[in-house]
Amino acid sequence: MTTSVDRLAHYRRWRIALDAPAIELDLADARLAEPDVADLARLQIALAAMARLEAGAIANPDEGRQVGHFWLRAPALAPDPAIGAAIEASWRQIDELAAHVRSGSLAAADGEPFRDLLLVGIGGSALGPLLVADALGGESTALGFHVLDNTDPTGIHRTLARIPSLAHTLVLVISKSGSTVETRNGMLEVAAACQAQGLAFAAQAVAITVPGSGLAAQAEREGWRAVVPMWEWVGGRFSVTAAVGLAPMALLGLDWRAFLAGAAAMDAHTREAPPRHNLAAMLAWLWYAEGQGRGERAMVALPYRDGLTLLARYLQQLVMESLGKRLDRQGREVWQGLTVYGNKGSTDQHAYVQQLRDGRHDFFALFLRVLADGPGPVGHEVEPGVTSGDCLDGFYQGTRAALAERGRASATLVLPRLDAAALGALIALFERAVGLYAELVDVNAYHQPGVEAGKVAARAVLDLQRRLVAALVDREPQSARELAARVGADPLATWQVLRSLAANHRGVRQEGDDPEEARFTRA
Amino acid sequence: MTTSVDRLAHYRRWRIALDAPAIELDLADARLAEPDVADLARLQIALAAMARLEAGAIANPDEGRQVGHFWLRAPALAPDPAIGAAIEASWRQIDELAAHVRSGSLAAADGEPFRDLLLVGIGGSALGPLLVADALGGESTALGFHVLDNTDPTGIHRTLARIPSLAHTLVLVISKSGSTVETRNGMLEVAAACQAQGLAFAAQAVAITVPGSGLAAQAEREGWRAVVPMWEWVGGRFSVTAAVGLAPMALLGLDWRAFLAGAAAMDAHTREAPPRHNLAAMLAWLWYAEGQGRGERAMVALPYRDGLTLLARYLQQLVMESLGKRLDRQGREVWQGLTVYGNKGSTDQHAYVQQLRDGRHDFFALFLRVLADGPGPVGHEVEPGVTSGDCLDGFYQGTRAALAERGRASATLVLPRLDAAALGALIALFERAVGLYAELVDVNAYHQPGVEAGKVAARAVLDLQRRLVAALVDREPQSARELAARVGADPLATWQVLRSLAANHRGVRQEGDDPEEARFTRA
Repeated sequence: MTTSVDRLAHYRRWRIALDAPAIELDLADARLAEPDVADLARLQIALAAMARLEAGAIANPDEGRQVGHFWLRAPALAPDPAIGAAIEASWRQIDELAAHVRSGSLAAADGEPFRDLLLVGIGGSALGPLLVADALGGESTALGFHVLDNTDPTGIHRTLARIPSLAHTLVLVISKSGSTVETRNGMLEVAAACQAQGLAFAAQAVAITVPGSGLAAQAEREGWRAVVPMWEWVGGRFSVTAAVGLAPMALLGLDWRAFLAGAAAMDAHTREAPPRHNLAAMLAWLWYAEGQGRGERAMVALPYRDGLTLLARYLQQLVMESLGKRLDRQGREVWQGLTVYGNKGSTDQHAYVQQLRDGRHDFFALFLRVLADGPGPVGHEVEPGVTSGDCLDGFYQGTRAALAERGRASATLVLPRLDAAALGALIALFERAVGLYAELVDVNAYHQPGVEAGKVAARAVLDLQRRLVAALVDREPQSARELAARVGADPLATWQVLRSLAANHRGVRQEGDDPEEARFTRA
Repeated sequence: MTTSVDRLAHYRRWRIALDAPAIELDLADARLAEPDVADLARLQIALAAMARLEAGAIANPDEGRQVGHFWLRAPALAPDPAIGAAIEASWRQIDELAAHVRSGSLAAADGEPFRDLLLVGIGGSALGPLLVADALGGESTALGFHVLDNTDPTGIHRTLARIPSLAHTLVLVISKSGSTVETRNGMLEVAAACQAQGLAFAAQAVAITVPGSGLAAQAEREGWRAVVPMWEWVGGRFSVTAAVGLAPMALLGLDWRAFLAGAAAMDAHTREAPPRHNLAAMLAWLWYAEGQGRGERAMVALPYRDGLTLLARYLQQLVMESLGKRLDRQGREVWQGLTVYGNKGSTDQHAYVQQLRDGRHDFFALFLRVLADGPGPVGHEVEPGVTSGDCLDGFYQGTRAALAERGRASATLVLPRLDAAALGALIALFERAVGLYAELVDVNAYHQPGVEAGKVAARAVLDLQRRLVAALVDREPQSARELAARVGADPLATWQVLRSLAANHRGVRQEGDDPEEARFTRA
């Protein structure tokens, strides 16, 4: 392990270590060239743009919106004092909500305390809460935690079956607009399950939504237990430091104020530090350098802690939805993006690390190392002088070295320990890095125009379904092609809808399996 | 939705539908050209190579091994009757084991039946069982199911804390060699937890391992409840149809014979069918065409069922560990691979589908559609005439259409329902597709030489740790650089080990956080 290169000195040059929040970015194996004057100027310009965004500029011009997720950690910085006051009011409301549930003054219909929390949401309204609960909660949260994040009836059934007592479950419905179909369906299925058990859904429901949304109106009309505000100027994937993340944390007994403080401390650092000493700027620079500013290499996120298994999925959403854009801000087609995937070390050493070392050089690795083992059999030796945690850290170092040996770049984020403040800092770091990278490649990181087409097409499928069911009344057996002609639809789309209806015994009977030959009748 | 192209006829041409196992591969949006005579000849050659592999050829020459996972579903086809007999004997043993646990003749020390199953394994020894349990078990398995698949002490602690009663938990230790560090550590931690509760670990432990391994010897020496065989000719990532997958299925009350039968039926199809009508051959052909035979596009796996969320991780391991290779079989550097990632639809529509539609065209999608909703609120309407399941299927169709509109290829596997036979068929399909693709690009799909380097480097880290702890005895405060010189190690490696020891209070005290300035003493 001796070497002629002074690796310690190299590491010291490429290490950015903060005291508060305590976190280190280790770029010793990132294979970066020192940014030159022009590079640093570009990064400085990106930092300045982020400062304008924080000051309330319309950073999301397509939707005519400000981008305010940084204010959530520092309400005093909000450009409009009313916004700052609203944020602080939401904190008080979250505190009160959690206190009432804890004290039992907000309780189940039978007067018993709530024992479980069921979150209904999708995308940014589920993944952030899932991440923080898993990373910080583990086996010991104040309430059991369950999530409905899809419209799969089988999955909904399964989640509801796992809840020990629906009667003692507080239901948190999270939707900015209130019109997200999956979330609406989850809510309706939970309400139906409550009704089937003779429970009043409204008496155990809380909404997190934008004031004035359909969901807010429904919650007020039906007398839900609380409505906690979200805001138009917070995107779903940036919302974990809003009530979306904080309310579940508070209800689960996790330290959401420390989480916010960690994020605020990271904001302060990444807002002020010069580019070469700025964690977010150097992270964005790594992404830029590795991918030639075009995302040509994927980021493989490998946290070495079981509790951070969801981090890669969280970053996948944050990064890919923000950066995966067809047009730049000048309206030119750029087809940008930065692919993110990963699970956890050292488990993934036994899955795809074979390809990372021996296969395509189309990625760079982002390791996450937590120095202190958390609660557990910390001192127990599995070999003389060696613990399970030593092995975990050894595998991190070994995998990193094995990739470096093959010229595959990596960066490591080092946390002294995994706690609420560290997780908040981590999230704020990635939020800023995404914003800076978007400035470097000139895309709007704060909209998601590409998801609309799929929703519109799905809506057309449901519309076609209704027309087909109507067309089947009192008719002879017909082929998909005949039925398509009757309702004026594409024959293939018709076939796809009909076979799904038939498979689910939804009043349609199918004879035969060939797309031309099969005949459909009303069942 | 009307169109001048006859999409139904196009779909019919690009659809391969089987009756048994009931599964359809829909390539209508795969943007494939008809394979020409030369293409079909290549695929036929690949199929012939797979036939030789099934007949017992040494298909893994680096390790001098046969590759026999197909025999696991059809023991009569094993080239050596003794192998076939061993497979069938393992089935009987699995049946007996499960029957004894079910009847209570194999019970906890207090005579009560086992209520939970704790699997200790990693990679192929964990991911397959996790997938089948999640896809088929859901909320209602015969035993509660828990998995230790890492050496994170915090994660181990958390999993053990979730188990209602360790005394009533059967522990299944799965390791081919018995020397996998993570699995050994998991086993030792569970044994220590048993000891702490006054439980005899051996009396509730079962091993699955290669006869003659160190683990087999230990289990026999200590009197574990059973040792079920694995074999050298089954790779970990191909082992879910061996005892690795079947024993957990049997213990959880899942229909492992139907699972095997589904796999066998898919084997029969993919073994015999001519390339253009062969699901595995056309799937491999899609991979080849989309990635130019170099994996230039990632496969995004999107199952539209919550229970199949782990499928993408399973395929990630199967595909990337098999195909991510530096050398082809002629010894030429090829740096091959095929990246796989994904989670589930429609959830991921709210995460990275933005990039799939609007961003980099560096992927193709593999959708998985299950026609029949499983148990659940199937008939419940969320809009007039529309169920949650209709919405799920509509989102699948919508996302597929939105990607097709942008020229991004997709394929869809359609299952009438998700059951054990369908899952077995699905797994067998991918196993054959991986083998065929490896033939097309001429790599050995059955070894994993790239994972060794990381293990060796990790071992060196643990060795350095021991030397450093010894060197710290009775000495003045020293820097990492000084200690490195003393033990003859690299100063950076020394620093990394020391700070981990210090963070975990492992007899090392650290003063200061600068890599050159910090001083270490014995605590």
